[in-house]
Amino acid sequence: MNVEFINPFLVSLINVTSTMATMDLKPGKPQLKNHDIAKGDVSGLIGMVGPKTRGSLSITFEKTLILEIMNKMLAENPGVINDEVTDLVGELTNMVTGGAKNLLSEKGYEFDMATPAVVSGENHTISHKARGKKILMPFTHEYGSAFIEICFEDVQSV
Amino acid sequence: MNVEFINPFLVSLINVTSTMATMDLKPGKPQLKNHDIAKGDVSGLIGMVGPKTRGSLSITFEKTLILEIMNKMLAENPGVINDEVTDLVGELTNMVTGGAKNLLSEKGYEFDMATPAVVSGENHTISHKARGKKILMPFTHEYGSAFIEICFEDVQSV
Repeated sequence: MNVEFINPFLVSLINVTSTMATMDLKPGKPQLKNHDIAKGDVSGLIGMVGPKTRGSLSITFEKTLILEIMNKMLAENPGVINDEVTDLVGELTNMVTGGAKNLLSEKGYEFDMATPAVVSGENHTISHKARGKKILMPFTHEYGSAFIEICFEDVQSV
Repeated sequence: MNVEFINPFLVSLINVTSTMATMDLKPGKPQLKNHDIAKGDVSGLIGMVGPKTRGSLSITFEKTLILEIMNKMLAENPGVINDEVTDLVGELTNMVTGGAKNLLSEKGYEFDMATPAVVSGENHTISHKARGKKILMPFTHEYGSAFIEICFEDVQSV
């Protein structure tokens, strides 16, 4: 997996949080994920299926950060991860993946998106099980951290 | 979503655990999921994309149950949810979804599977965000509980 494939996801999360919540997330250096170091409190997960590749993506937020994103977007801060927050995480996951899909489509990479699922639970970790390199993209903000993780594999004979 | 669509997933989990681990999971009554009542310690998630539908599936296990499944399948019980256990959950998720996919294909329902991701974290919950009914299938065993959750939506113009 090359930079050409990674950057659209990174750019898409920055665009979405900047546009929707006027919050500028600062990207760290994308890295190969060798251990389950990305812990968070709420994560959106989505599957992707294309003619040549398939994979999964997760976006994990610390509670303090997603609550501030909700506060900025909807002027609401429930203080806990409730159904409204998981709905928002599901929508952000769709928007970020959809944005990356459009950018990648222009470069000839095509995939369809499944529907998102959202995990709630303090300090959970996520392991992507595609047979390919796992890329971790960290983001920081004064309100907390976020991580995107993606993993893709080539489609074998199915 | 009708019984014709639900039963293949239920049957597939029972088949997989019976065949691979010689453990008979007892299915409870499938139900519409209105609240996040299914908590567990490790979950496999997978996205599905078809020409007419897309959705997501999760299989959630209590720690005691997945460790006994691992013990029966591989004669190993690490006592904690480690990488070997999450690998096993990812493979079980693929097998169960693949089994259901084959059964559904015979009935004319077609979808492709993304790759699985596995969530670890005590007492996490999962919310499927497809615009469709969420079905919860509970399973019990003397070693603990498991749940399948699925949610599908019709593909709109994409």
